[in-house]
Amino acid sequence: MSRPPMELWIEEIQGKDVRLGLRAKTVLHREVSEFQEILVVDTLSYGRALFLDGTFQVTEKDEFVYHEMLAHLPMMSHPSPRRVLVIGGGDGGTIREVVKHKEVEEAVLCEIDPRVTAVCREYLPEVASGLADPRVRVLHEDGVSYIKEHKNSFDVILVDSTDPVGPAVGLYSPEFYAACKEALRAGGIVCAQSESPFVNGDVVRRVSQSMQSSFPHRLLYLSPLPTYPSGFWSFTAGAGQPLPREVSKERAAALATRYYTAEVHEAAFALPPFAAALIE
Amino acid sequence: MSRPPMELWIEEIQGKDVRLGLRAKTVLHREVSEFQEILVVDTLSYGRALFLDGTFQVTEKDEFVYHEMLAHLPMMSHPSPRRVLVIGGGDGGTIREVVKHKEVEEAVLCEIDPRVTAVCREYLPEVASGLADPRVRVLHEDGVSYIKEHKNSFDVILVDSTDPVGPAVGLYSPEFYAACKEALRAGGIVCAQSESPFVNGDVVRRVSQSMQSSFPHRLLYLSPLPTYPSGFWSFTAGAGQPLPREVSKERAAALATRYYTAEVHEAAFALPPFAAALIE
Repeated sequence: MSRPPMELWIEEIQGKDVRLGLRAKTVLHREVSEFQEILVVDTLSYGRALFLDGTFQVTEKDEFVYHEMLAHLPMMSHPSPRRVLVIGGGDGGTIREVVKHKEVEEAVLCEIDPRVTAVCREYLPEVASGLADPRVRVLHEDGVSYIKEHKNSFDVILVDSTDPVGPAVGLYSPEFYAACKEALRAGGIVCAQSESPFVNGDVVRRVSQSMQSSFPHRLLYLSPLPTYPSGFWSFTAGAGQPLPREVSKERAAALATRYYTAEVHEAAFALPPFAAALIE
Repeated sequence: MSRPPMELWIEEIQGKDVRLGLRAKTVLHREVSEFQEILVVDTLSYGRALFLDGTFQVTEKDEFVYHEMLAHLPMMSHPSPRRVLVIGGGDGGTIREVVKHKEVEEAVLCEIDPRVTAVCREYLPEVASGLADPRVRVLHEDGVSYIKEHKNSFDVILVDSTDPVGPAVGLYSPEFYAACKEALRAGGIVCAQSESPFVNGDVVRRVSQSMQSSFPHRLLYLSPLPTYPSGFWSFTAGAGQPLPREVSKERAAALATRYYTAEVHEAAFALPPFAAALIE
């Protein structure tokens, strides 16, 4: 006689009133680094999942949507993004998308926690694969300090941060975006993940307002993201010039993407009214 | 001395390996009708939520996205949708959007389970509000039988069904769509919810294939939907003629929507490659 198998679930309490659980095969890695708890769980439905301080960061199944939308929209908005900085994003997924652009000469990853990068290289090798590109330089420094010391250095800065609590809180301030502006070369573009338009409207507004005085042209755009709170995410791009709605179809097609295309880029400008109201 | 308050959660097991839970205030209503279990729960984060056979159908917070996208894209694709049929959709949310179109002379709701409609009128009055429109006729019949008996009768048919198990299974077959074609007048358009492109790729493909022989022009389009599996949903529209990418901005603006606009309509044509691959 057999009994039912053990029920093993990994669950994030999202906000305080919603929980998303995934049935798990096993825990692959767990440690507390200098900065946060790092956990990798093998799940049945979303493959391997990385959690930092108990929140979903990356799953193998849906990470392409987030990383493509964070990287390619701003990268394609720049005519020739040669030097690129990613702040946070220690899993490497954003850098993997950045180095698909043949214009890139150097891509710097500034991830404060060396353990995130090490754990992802070991347990999420496909996500971390871009870190091996010879154009990539991985630094384990505080992004806020780094950016203040590198003026006029980058064409695109991507802010791939955790939520506005813990190590990432400094990445949500107007001072940070003023430093981003200084760190960008002429025509430079910044883009940040800016949380859920459905349940974090205050953060969406805060990112936009923090960018406002340094970046007169901003674009709030959305994408689905199954394992993040509400399954619906936002990004905010900023520039000194209007962001282009139409981008090169040929350049976009060369990126070998599963979510982003030149058509998806243009569609991202069609912001639903409920989301537009968040930044009015 | 006080103890922590009771933890009350309502949870859907989505597929078999994912669960989405909402913290609840109380259960407002629970019954087993002739067709299914009907449950209304008051939640902290999504307001009141309707469950049929244990699956999220409607929450007060996110229902606008689903109902606007199911109704307005096909309605706006028709030059003058005067007679409209909604199959399923007993909560009334789709009908509420349909009757925003001033062209509508009659809107028939064919919901098999009278208890769904009664429960929603009582516990989700805002969602059910459209049912009171004098142009609306509510029938409690089987949609498959109804449609076979009404040839050449409708301009738009909206299939607002539950999942392809239980009472809705007949709404996913080629025979059903052949009957829809017969029930439509010249230039008519059908549109169905077609499940998650992320976790129900087989259903996305099945709906498209079932429409294929009756509707040579089809459009698969997507929207986020926080409380449905993966938070990411699909709809499939079918017609005898190409569906228009551009629709009247004036007509769309008159609908007083929070998600759908003429720009969102056009953006819906930008299908990400991973989703396009589902129907290749």
